[in-house]
Amino acid sequence: MARTRLGVLASGRGSNLQALIDSSREGSMDADVVVVISDVETAQALVRARKAGIEARFVGPGPKRAHLSEEAESAIIDLLDESKVDLVCLAGFMRILSPRLVRHFRWRLINIHPSLLPAFPGLRVQRKALEYGVKFSGCTVHFVDEGVDTGPIVIQAAVPVLEGDTEEKLVQRILKEEHRIYAEAVQLFGEGRLTIEGRVVRVLPERSGDAGSDEHRS
Amino acid sequence: MARTRLGVLASGRGSNLQALIDSSREGSMDADVVVVISDVETAQALVRARKAGIEARFVGPGPKRAHLSEEAESAIIDLLDESKVDLVCLAGFMRILSPRLVRHFRWRLINIHPSLLPAFPGLRVQRKALEYGVKFSGCTVHFVDEGVDTGPIVIQAAVPVLEGDTEEKLVQRILKEEHRIYAEAVQLFGEGRLTIEGRVVRVLPERSGDAGSDEHRS
Repeated sequence: MARTRLGVLASGRGSNLQALIDSSREGSMDADVVVVISDVETAQALVRARKAGIEARFVGPGPKRAHLSEEAESAIIDLLDESKVDLVCLAGFMRILSPRLVRHFRWRLINIHPSLLPAFPGLRVQRKALEYGVKFSGCTVHFVDEGVDTGPIVIQAAVPVLEGDTEEKLVQRILKEEHRIYAEAVQLFGEGRLTIEGRVVRVLPERSGDAGSDEHRS
Repeated sequence: MARTRLGVLASGRGSNLQALIDSSREGSMDADVVVVISDVETAQALVRARKAGIEARFVGPGPKRAHLSEEAESAIIDLLDESKVDLVCLAGFMRILSPRLVRHFRWRLINIHPSLLPAFPGLRVQRKALEYGVKFSGCTVHFVDEGVDTGPIVIQAAVPVLEGDTEEKLVQRILKEEHRIYAEAVQLFGEGRLTIEGRVVRVLPERSGDAGSDEHRS
């Protein structure tokens, strides 16, 4: 089976990017990050990519704050297409993507979000979860649709909120699960085991008939 | 320590009521159900109460569909006060309570809800969770405030959604956790270990200094 070619969009420190790179190298995921694109020239994610020998590109986002300019989106689409990516992974990418880009990569574009969606969409969500007083939060890998954090859910992980938690403690506890499920979602995608019915993602059984360890199946 | 006196309001089959009765009898909860009140004369919950030798009262709800009449609420408040209840537990009670009743039992009134709030408030929530395509749902014990399913959260349990789940399968899987955490919440209340800061419920450590098995504390 051919390895899955990943393009990663990241704005920040790139810890999920690093987890994808590590999973690829350790062989737990049959996929390779082939290009990393950032809207922030100084992003640690670009440093991590270069260090790993992966093509790293900065694309100036344009004048808007929450969105990319049309030119920036065109440049990103071109870079991803030229790199022949099978799947685009958002990893802390802080811009809302236009319907044009979402449609171009329809069901080939996934995001990881640090809450159990549909609870706590948006930003600073671990803080929101603490302020709400939930006793469980978690993280979600979902296909990206035209909304913000609304697309079909691939995998979730539940994470307890503990007495005395600070925002940073909860961020770190959830991040550990993010690293695990993001690589798992990429693997399921690469194995062709994800199908979308309405807004529900079904995970097909492994082809080989091996007894898998995937706890998300019955 | 005196045992906690519970009043239970239930409209339906009363499976959470039964779990409270069983936990009381088995000694896993230092609390007793002393009165069960229903707005449905034929509710199985009343049958269960009578069978267990617990006072069981029907209160006619009045003409409104979602709310109780003022007279019905007054009758319920009087019954609970006469029974000297320490804590009121809603267990599948299908009427929205007025601010008057909520204030009368402020922070002595709890509910159990079959989702990980704030996701999926309201009714038929296991079905809504399946239709949304979440991979984890669960249940929530919360203090009742003036909103619907909005009060401070005491305990939650996370429950996986599995491939091929029907609504009934998910209902049953969550119900098992409901039975566990509802008794646990009553016990914490009775031990005086719940404090509310803003809208966050803190669980104080056990007084004895014993290493407890409560996974919700760090």
